[in-house]
Amino acid sequence: MPRRPPAPGEYKVVLILRAELRLTAGKAAVQAAHAAVMLALAAEHRDRVAFDRWVSAGQKKIALVVPTLDDLEGVERAARARKIPTVWVEDAGLTEVPPGTRTCLGLGPAPASEIDAITGELSLL
Amino acid sequence: MPRRPPAPGEYKVVLILRAELRLTAGKAAVQAAHAAVMLALAAEHRDRVAFDRWVSAGQKKIALVVPTLDDLEGVERAARARKIPTVWVEDAGLTEVPPGTRTCLGLGPAPASEIDAITGELSLL
Repeated sequence: MPRRPPAPGEYKVVLILRAELRLTAGKAAVQAAHAAVMLALAAEHRDRVAFDRWVSAGQKKIALVVPTLDDLEGVERAARARKIPTVWVEDAGLTEVPPGTRTCLGLGPAPASEIDAITGELSLL
Repeated sequence: MPRRPPAPGEYKVVLILRAELRLTAGKAAVQAAHAAVMLALAAEHRDRVAFDRWVSAGQKKIALVVPTLDDLEGVERAARARKIPTVWVEDAGLTEVPPGTRTCLGLGPAPASEIDAITGELSLL
């Protein structure tokens, strides 16, 4: 499945899961949705320009996957260095993983070029 | 995987996908995240009580699946009859489905008892 090249200046959100957790599709969807809601609300209140650009262009989201938590922490450090908004989802651990497990890292909304610079080589979920 | 019984008065969101579309886990996660963001923003601006109750209790979300669009439309009619907030996600059709395809129905935030009355028998995604 080819990844469409982003339009110039397009804002997007990426939602990155950990392959090692072997979550069900439903659990992965819920973790991604948690991250997306937190990023949307944070942007709405803290960076209205980014929020408006992202929503007006269809609030683009991509779900990606990395092998391990170490990999995810590396992506987070790279995002923070570029001042891209980040959010961790920690699961309450009621079903598939222990409480407090970091299940998903969300990034953005931010310009696609900024996000792609640190996530462009990651696999689609 | 047992479903935890909801606490009395607990608010939640459900995100319902169509099995017939055979979406990848990543595509399903993105559709669910679209629905969750739209429901969160709508509640924040239109029903602050529901929004606050849902967020303060950890913005609970569950991903479910029905076989067909007909099934999903039936759930939507039942939700509207109970005045539960609903949102459709229509995919831009860039990858896995034709443009305008209804990929996901989101419900809530609403009291778990209300949502469970119409979705309690559906399968987890």
